[in-house]
Amino acid sequence: MEEVTGAQLIAESLKAQKVEYMFGIVGVPVIEVAMAAQAAGIKYVGMRNEQAACYAASAIGYLTGRPGSCLVVSGPGLIHALGGMANANINLSCCPPPPVSLADHDEITKAISVLKTAKAPLIIIGKGAAYGRAETVLKEFVEMSGLPFLPTPMGKGVLPDDHPNCVAAARSRALLQADVVLLLGARLNWILHFGLPPRFNPDVKIIQVELCPEEMGNNVRPAAALLGDINAIVTQLLACVRKEGWKYPSNTEWWSTLKEKIAANAKMSKALALKETLPMNYYTVFHHISQLLPHDCIIVSEGANTMDIGRTMLNNYLPRHRLDAGTFGTMGVGLGFAIAAAALEKSENSGRRVVCVEGDSAFGFSGMEVETMCRYNLPVVLIVVNNNGIYSGMDPKTWKEMAKMGDLTSIAPPVSLLPEARYDEVMTAFGGRGFLVRTVEELRSALQLSLSDWEKPSLLNVLIDPSSDRKQQVIGAFSNIRQ
Amino acid sequence: MEEVTGAQLIAESLKAQKVEYMFGIVGVPVIEVAMAAQAAGIKYVGMRNEQAACYAASAIGYLTGRPGSCLVVSGPGLIHALGGMANANINLSCCPPPPVSLADHDEITKAISVLKTAKAPLIIIGKGAAYGRAETVLKEFVEMSGLPFLPTPMGKGVLPDDHPNCVAAARSRALLQADVVLLLGARLNWILHFGLPPRFNPDVKIIQVELCPEEMGNNVRPAAALLGDINAIVTQLLACVRKEGWKYPSNTEWWSTLKEKIAANAKMSKALALKETLPMNYYTVFHHISQLLPHDCIIVSEGANTMDIGRTMLNNYLPRHRLDAGTFGTMGVGLGFAIAAAALEKSENSGRRVVCVEGDSAFGFSGMEVETMCRYNLPVVLIVVNNNGIYSGMDPKTWKEMAKMGDLTSIAPPVSLLPEARYDEVMTAFGGRGFLVRTVEELRSALQLSLSDWEKPSLLNVLIDPSSDRKQQVIGAFSNIRQ
Amino acid sequence: MEEVTGAQLIAESLKAQKVEYMFGIVGVPVIEVAMAAQAAGIKYVGMRNEQAACYAASAIGYLTGRPGSCLVVSGPGLIHALGGMANANINLSCCPPPPVSLADHDEITKAISVLKTAKAPLIIIGKGAAYGRAETVLKEFVEMSGLPFLPTPMGKGVLPDDHPNCVAAARSRALLQADVVLLLGARLNWILHFGLPPRFNPDVKIIQVELCPEEMGNNVRPAAALLGDINAIVTQLLACVRKEGWKYPSNTEWWSTLKEKIAANAKMSKALALKETLPMNYYTVFHHISQLLPHDCIIVSEGANTMDIGRTMLNNYLPRHRLDAGTFGTMGVGLGFAIAAAALEKSENSGRRVVCVEGDSAFGFSGMEVETMCRYNLPVVLIVVNNNGIYSGMDPKTWKEMAKMGDLTSIAPPVSLLPEARYDEVMTAFGGRGFLVRTVEELRSALQLSLSDWEKPSLLNVLIDPSSDRKQQVIGAFSNIRQ
Amino acid sequence: MEEVTGAQLIAESLKAQKVEYMFGIVGVPVIEVAMAAQAAGIKYVGMRNEQAACYAASAIGYLTGRPGSCLVVSGPGLIHALGGMANANINLSCCPPPPVSLADHDEITKAISVLKTAKAPLIIIGKGAAYGRAETVLKEFVEMSGLPFLPTPMGKGVLPDDHPNCVAAARSRALLQADVVLLLGARLNWILHFGLPPRFNPDVKIIQVELCPEEMGNNVRPAAALLGDINAIVTQLLACVRKEGWKYPSNTEWWSTLKEKIAANAKMSKALALKETLPMNYYTVFHHISQLLPHDCIIVSEGANTMDIGRTMLNNYLPRHRLDAGTFGTMGVGLGFAIAAAALEKSENSGRRVVCVEGDSAFGFSGMEVETMCRYNLPVVLIVVNNNGIYSGMDPKTWKEMAKMGDLTSIAPPVSLLPEARYDEVMTAFGGRGFLVRTVEELRSALQLSLSDWEKPSLLNVLIDPSSDRKQQVIGAFSNIRQ
Repeated sequence: MEEVTGAQLIAESLKAQKVEYMFGIVGVPVIEVAMAAQAAGIKYVGMRNEQAACYAASAIGYLTGRPGSCLVVSGPGLIHALGGMANANINLSCCPPPPVSLADHDEITKAISVLKTAKAPLIIIGKGAAYGRAETVLKEFVEMSGLPFLPTPMGKGVLPDDHPNCVAAARSRALLQADVVLLLGARLNWILHFGLPPRFNPDVKIIQVELCPEEMGNNVRPAAALLGDINAIVTQLLACVRKEGWKYPSNTEWWSTLKEKIAANAKMSKALALKETLPMNYYTVFHHISQLLPHDCIIVSEGANTMDIGRTMLNNYLPRHRLDAGTFGTMGVGLGFAIAAAALEKSENSGRRVVCVEGDSAFGFSGMEVETMCRYNLPVVLIVVNNNGIYSGMDPKTWKEMAKMGDLTSIAPPVSLLPEARYDEVMTAFGGRGFLVRTVEELRSALQLSLSDWEKPSLLNVLIDPSSDRKQQVIGAFSNIRQ
Repeated sequence: MEEVTGAQLIAESLKAQKVEYMFGIVGVPVIEVAMAAQAAGIKYVGMRNEQAACYAASAIGYLTGRPGSCLVVSGPGLIHALGGMANANINLSCCPPPPVSLADHDEITKAISVLKTAKAPLIIIGKGAAYGRAETVLKEFVEMSGLPFLPTPMGKGVLPDDHPNCVAAARSRALLQADVVLLLGARLNWILHFGLPPRFNPDVKIIQVELCPEEMGNNVRPAAALLGDINAIVTQLLACVRKEGWKYPSNTEWWSTLKEKIAANAKMSKALALKETLPMNYYTVFHHISQLLPHDCIIVSEGANTMDIGRTMLNNYLPRHRLDAGTFGTMGVGLGFAIAAAALEKSENSGRRVVCVEGDSAFGFSGMEVETMCRYNLPVVLIVVNNNGIYSGMDPKTWKEMAKMGDLTSIAPPVSLLPEARYDEVMTAFGGRGFLVRTVEELRSALQLSLSDWEKPSLLNVLIDPSSDRKQQVIGAFSNIRQ
Repeated sequence: MEEVTGAQLIAESLKAQKVEYMFGIVGVPVIEVAMAAQAAGIKYVGMRNEQAACYAASAIGYLTGRPGSCLVVSGPGLIHALGGMANANINLSCCPPPPVSLADHDEITKAISVLKTAKAPLIIIGKGAAYGRAETVLKEFVEMSGLPFLPTPMGKGVLPDDHPNCVAAARSRALLQADVVLLLGARLNWILHFGLPPRFNPDVKIIQVELCPEEMGNNVRPAAALLGDINAIVTQLLACVRKEGWKYPSNTEWWSTLKEKIAANAKMSKALALKETLPMNYYTVFHHISQLLPHDCIIVSEGANTMDIGRTMLNNYLPRHRLDAGTFGTMGVGLGFAIAAAALEKSENSGRRVVCVEGDSAFGFSGMEVETMCRYNLPVVLIVVNNNGIYSGMDPKTWKEMAKMGDLTSIAPPVSLLPEARYDEVMTAFGGRGFLVRTVEELRSALQLSLSDWEKPSLLNVLIDPSSDRKQQVIGAFSNIRQ
Repeated sequence: MEEVTGAQLIAESLKAQKVEYMFGIVGVPVIEVAMAAQAAGIKYVGMRNEQAACYAASAIGYLTGRPGSCLVVSGPGLIHALGGMANANINLSCCPPPPVSLADHDEITKAISVLKTAKAPLIIIGKGAAYGRAETVLKEFVEMSGLPFLPTPMGKGVLPDDHPNCVAAARSRALLQADVVLLLGARLNWILHFGLPPRFNPDVKIIQVELCPEEMGNNVRPAAALLGDINAIVTQLLACVRKEGWKYPSNTEWWSTLKEKIAANAKMSKALALKETLPMNYYTVFHHISQLLPHDCIIVSEGANTMDIGRTMLNNYLPRHRLDAGTFGTMGVGLGFAIAAAALEKSENSGRRVVCVEGDSAFGFSGMEVETMCRYNLPVVLIVVNNNGIYSGMDPKTWKEMAKMGDLTSIAPPVSLLPEARYDEVMTAFGGRGFLVRTVEELRSALQLSLSDWEKPSLLNVLIDPSSDRKQQVIGAFSNIRQ
């Protein structure tokens, strides 16, 4: 009988469970596991910190519906990976199991009857709808029912952001004034303001569609509770709507108020985007990126202003094409997620780009992983929106003057990072493309070049106005944008 | 009555406990704590990943005997910091408490009488002796008693490595043949092979000097157990030796065998160091670094071969002047430790250099922290000993050929990193000095330049032979070195 | 504005969540909580050890579908209650949530088609079916489909044990030879031998009906996986069977082999039960108890042989009328469970008896709770089947002789308890009825008297043969019983 | 080579570590461990609940300085034992390690010089002094220095409670007015009111003698901190006092105020004790018990009033002769402790009695363990001071009237237990002696009989006035007692 090593056993049982990727850092005695994994046909991506490795592995689950794996040494290796495990647990470890369950028919009927009484109905599409791969039937349901919808950050793209029923650009008003909310795989946590005033109507009725019974009734008691698989339940809802021939009219006051707000916000946003002063502001940067990105690209994003404003400006058109800092707001996930996505797309030869939009502080959490991208020739397009700090930073001249005044550890603002740090050179150090970007022209040219290169990763270090943040820009001339 | 914020309360209570440094990453709602800390006179060092921040904070405890502090946001910030907390707990969180306790007189007498019967006695100096600040009295005891001594990795420098009684260069033989070991603040864990055969004499008698009662008798039952403060107990031992006028003779067979081994190893090591072939090997690199480093510099180190070989080649001359990956062998600690040490030395205007010797894989765990060094003008000298991988790597040409053969995630050895990665450019990206080093001349020149610059950090990217590791070099011509 | 105390808040919020019972032991500062609970209309049962209090509270959940509550002091009070919390978690904390989900229609169809191919089909009814209150539709399904069924210990009574399709008396054979198993709310843990050989057919196909997705596929990959509410799914299965007009024939070889085994076992069991030698054996005792117990009584049971043999001999006729040591096999649960059940039945004036069948060792874990029964006049009928030990014990004469031979802590078998201990007098000490029972006549008379008294608890201390255990009895003449 | 089972290995390694007792409950698969333990010469005591087993095991550590052991099954067995483990950890797991450490000479000198400045000095003797076996040298120190002392509950008996320097009867005044406290192995937790006002002088100086460095400075910053072995440190203090020839005078104002308070309290206490009304009160009961108990008996105690008042009335004359509910105030420890102590004394044939003084509620936590006492013929004298409840209870007549008024779970006071419960019959049920005691004469006679029987355990069920508790008695005529 042939001998089998423990490493082979591990590798083969992972393979038997259809694990296709392993991310990690080897050390004694797990090198053999990595080699056995490769021998078994599992792809191994060596990372630079277990933290990033674990974030990468968790992204595989979201993108493919099959688990990824993470290889670390014991002790500190395992501890470094805890962040990824916690993040996966809160955002991604709830894979849709093969068996599908349906909602009770009576609850379906009740849900539709509540919807029919609504004057200001709203669908909220959460990441559960993305996991549940409910996009096809959901599109039909939205169009058949004529209801406005709003995606959560990770629900973006289940239906295209430019769908006529999407009211994301009037998010605050939609949440505040809706009288019936159909919650599709979204949870009433802080991202949705717990479903409570002052951000929600105190009398709002919630129809909850949810896979996990423990989530039912969290924070708000639902008017109808539809437990089961989201795709199956939307199919049930659609059948009911179709049978009754019901459709929410498009000429209501509710649609008027939403559309008016969308138009106003678009105008403000565009004005900001077209400002020609330098350094650029967030809206200008995202406006031009948005014009150039292919519709089928996968957008990874993390940061504070960068992620928040970017989410409103960068459209998603396809489901499961967005990964971000998630419910925990975890910084450090971006490069790991991008590596996982790029390894996957490359292996599938999908022709899809992976674009990673990072705040400068966020980039610092795992910036060394650009070496991993270069090593494996993963053509990620990294855009660092660089305002020299966390929330906001300083310009180089002021910084230098301050440095003369005393010990920086005593006087430098804790939010400040080194002004105009050359993150692009961190990429060129390992053979990738780097661009220092100060103007619209440089931005467009660098992004086009990067998108045309399928061999190497690129990094655009986009210097923006360090002294302004979202609020300041908004509070200036255009105080009602995004409200 | 004036209002006090929670942030002020935290800052002031830290200050009252003589905390002088805070390392961290701010976010809502802890920005205010960082600002309050600065207002209270605590120095704040903004880092790039909580992992590194926590390692930095832990180093302050070792270097100053006072706690450092680490500021993180809740959730993922805290999880990222767990590695530092675990590492601090196993290596550094046991501050010597103000009250000092002495060993029982009878145990002192017993210890000395056991020592007097020894034919092959050995002192092992652990990091407990460094914490206990026992260096002055310990030097007197070693010289009065005439005993050979061996430092553990973190015990290096309590007495100078070039002290005539130091037998570190005959470590394996000393451990194996000693018949009585005086264990001074060192623990019988894996670093000391648990005090057991085949690395120790099965009949060895251990005299254990230890602060922590729970450590007494771990793995080996001591012949004498001296519980208490190490400085106080060595003082007691010294008084006893002095009173009895006892000294271990210098002309014993034991000293002869140790000195013979030291001389043989020095010869081998020197031969390796003087090899003129390129790329350089580890011994050549460390030989020249060792010649140029000032005796009072603080050496931080992590890596596999880099740390192991470096430890034998780079002498420490002063106590608490060395920080490394410790009992856990934690990768990722180096830059955090170096930042903490450099912030401290800069603030005390001590004139001491901080030199950080990193393996290339180890550097990747927290390489983005070079931005922190540049931001605060901390003149750390970073030496990355670069063999293109973990344990060993590939040369650029072979790598490129391999890359043509298929998907690298399927075929690249898990230990390999990008060949000849330009870690030096990661430093120059942020305004520090960077050097690509291939020859002895380049090494010496770059190191001299770096040591002469007190304003900026430097990074020497020292390319060595990627295909050889310690064992291979040793097994070649000089198979008995370090045995 | 009127002041509200914390104790009132706790009591009222429990009441608002429809908690009707609190079990506990008061101490500073929780006395006020107990009093506030009573003031709010919650019944308070003061117990003698927090361990039993917590087991009592957990039983309320199973019996009523609403949570019970447990009041303890901090520190040791909480620690003593951990056993109950762990037990409740493994056996009882999974309340059916209000929203009901159905299985996918395709899986229903698949399940039925697998069933139709079976030559030796078997339904296993688990405690999930009891929680799910699926008894009515399940009875219809069993009778419509003509399938044999087997209850798990806590699934006993969902359908009556004397139902013609029940094959519990041929359990081993049924498990071993079934080729298709319809698993209804039962889990493949050690109680069901993990669904694996040698106790199961290696080629068995499992159809899994289960509420909890994480349980799907544990140990065995199901041929069909029906996720959702058991009552709803059995309704779906029934509709499918009815529509197709399918029924498993009653004249198959499978039914013949099962019935032959049932008859053989019944014969063996009866022969044992009718043995007239004294002391009595387990089968005799349970035979007569079984004849006298009303069909609607609630049976609580714990012990080793007592619970195992008792389960096969004491029929359940109604769902949720049995509570036992559960998946953990926890000893110490019996009296707490019985108190909870009796308080409930008394309060509802249901006319149902609570009968608690205990091994003598099991009784010792919480025997002092008989004082609680007496204090609240809870008419529990406690039957202690006393064999003087754990698994087996000694007779009084041998014990006395042994005691003369030396220190009992050195020589007494660890399984032995005091021979012929008068557990009945523990009951009379607090005013309940006590009976010492050695013969069939005494047993029948005592049990009849106890069942006729609705005011007081009773304890029958039934002395049986201490030297025999189940295996010995069985291995004698009737070696194939229960196989 | 002979085969060795795992059970034998466990047993022999326990034996090698000088474990002499095992307490537990067997089950599959640990029966073999119990049998192997007996075979290896370890005494096995089979208990009735793992909770009590673990408390018993922990008492062995305190009484012998060697660890006891506890044998349980996994799962619920382990969970039931958690209480004992937590209690052992907070009260008993800190065995004095063989190596002894001394305090620094300078701190000794400082301590003595602080003591010499005191106008109102006080020694507090904690259980650390009992563990440290410091009684001989401590007696000499107290008598040489002339200082008043106060024992903590578990420090009682290190010096005899009737020592002329003992000021326990003026506890509150001594704590409040002392200006220097020498804290010997006692901790400033809630039992010592954290060393803070209003129970301590705000300007008190604390000299802390303590084995555990982490305890230094808890709650109060010590004027001198003497770290090390208590016996060794008291020896150092004694040497210093003797050398300086210093003694605190006996004619100070401090001694006068303490003695005056002691005399007043003794008078009040005696008046209460001699009250002849029935039912008896606590003081009467303890007065007579105290007269009859032999000076070398081991007193185990738990309960609320029973333990608190009993502690002031029942003297201890020898160290380590008292075990009680400890720092946690854990109920349920009494019978386990008593069984451990009695097994030990019986095995050593010491001629010492074990007397267990229990409140009635406390007895209920582990009352079934009287069967264990009977089974092993352990002649424990159990005194249950029975006031029909927790803190206070009801008389039988009132209880019966209340029972007619409605459901007792709704109206019975949570503190009430069954009035006049016959705990004595729980003992007679297993062959021990039982006494129902209502009068002084019955009490004295029953106690004398019990103490004269060395073969069997006894239980005195002492009925006292259920409506009175300590405060009521005290607040009546004698409002300043125990203040």
